[in-house]
Amino acid sequence: MVSDTEDFIGALRAQAHRYHSWHPFQVMMNEGRLSRRQIQGWVANRFYYQKNIPRKDAAILANCPDREVRRRWIRRILDQDGTADGEGGIEAWLRLGEAVGLTREEVWDERHVVPGVRFAVDAYITFADTRPWVEAVSASLTELFAPDLMAGRLTAFERFYTWIDPAGLAYFRARLTQAPRDAEHALEVVTKYCRTADEQERAVAALSFKCDVLWSMLDAITWAYLGSTLQGDA
Amino acid sequence: MVSDTEDFIGALRAQAHRYHSWHPFQVMMNEGRLSRRQIQGWVANRFYYQKNIPRKDAAILANCPDREVRRRWIRRILDQDGTADGEGGIEAWLRLGEAVGLTREEVWDERHVVPGVRFAVDAYITFADTRPWVEAVSASLTELFAPDLMAGRLTAFERFYTWIDPAGLAYFRARLTQAPRDAEHALEVVTKYCRTADEQERAVAALSFKCDVLWSMLDAITWAYLGSTLQGDA
Repeated sequence: MVSDTEDFIGALRAQAHRYHSWHPFQVMMNEGRLSRRQIQGWVANRFYYQKNIPRKDAAILANCPDREVRRRWIRRILDQDGTADGEGGIEAWLRLGEAVGLTREEVWDERHVVPGVRFAVDAYITFADTRPWVEAVSASLTELFAPDLMAGRLTAFERFYTWIDPAGLAYFRARLTQAPRDAEHALEVVTKYCRTADEQERAVAALSFKCDVLWSMLDAITWAYLGSTLQGDA
Repeated sequence: MVSDTEDFIGALRAQAHRYHSWHPFQVMMNEGRLSRRQIQGWVANRFYYQKNIPRKDAAILANCPDREVRRRWIRRILDQDGTADGEGGIEAWLRLGEAVGLTREEVWDERHVVPGVRFAVDAYITFADTRPWVEAVSASLTELFAPDLMAGRLTAFERFYTWIDPAGLAYFRARLTQAPRDAEHALEVVTKYCRTADEQERAVAALSFKCDVLWSMLDAITWAYLGSTLQGDA
């Protein structure tokens, strides 16, 4: 069983090559090649994802009969919603919006959110709501790959996008510690609950699906904010 | 609008006459007329409800787009699951099980849970999962009626069922303060979100449905643990 579990973890980690850190839009971002408007478009669209994360995690809680898992998983909702005004990841993302020159209102009311982003995020929420909860936990494991991306993004923002108030980057800084803690718990859960080859394959498929969600969001954002640039390159 | 809201609250409160405090099994309980085995049967069956409450509340969170509501609603999950070993309403109910002479195992593994109780509780979870979240909040308003029942039950248990270790009654004591706090929040939410006659009617219907859930559980418990008595009375 030990080697099985190691192979399984290896298969999960191998999904890193499909993580959105390799998406051209993300590569351009971290190379400092995005305009102010393109950064704003990304922040405003990505907010739709941030805003829906607590509902995704609550769907996992709602489907999860294991009290021990729920007791730890609920931390994610508390982190993202916060427990009072001015707290939480959603609030931190709104402040990022202000730091890049958007108003809270135009981020909050989703006016900039393009259909492809909405479809991808909604698909993820529906997945968490309707699929076995362990698969939804597996889907969350993109957090295994997040810290490297976050660190690179922080460096890039501070180096290339000096017009952004560094105080606005608190969301990324918080995720540097939250994501590894969350990923460690999720990995414990999936290795405990996914023992058969079939269960492990479905866990890897769920993580692959989640990579598609994140990638597809960047495709839609690229089309909306870099469309003419891409045509110009062709 | 003020009178509308008052009428609406009145219609909600009027559902008290359908609350399970009037069920013959509950009346017998509070009159001290239940046997040890009947009390045990009630505790073991009611556990299935307790155990599923966090999933019901997480379903409400999952369906609720209002962050302010989620920030307060999540308290219910924390109360019922607890945040560590030995904490929470589920744990308190397991201790009640021990206090009435059941083992933790036989309560936890649901061996005593009768089909009618399972169907009623599952219907409530499905309701919270599939109906608009405000209706599920309305359904929770049986908590408006709970404190009176809890107070009466505590008195009855201490007076008539002296074989039960009073330490096992902590669940009921906790609910004396939690239920009014929770009901107050739920009432704020439904009066804010249910403004049209149609919305208010659906809220009252949801609360009526919840009364049916609780009543139906006691019907099934009565049949299982008092069946021969009832035949004897006829």
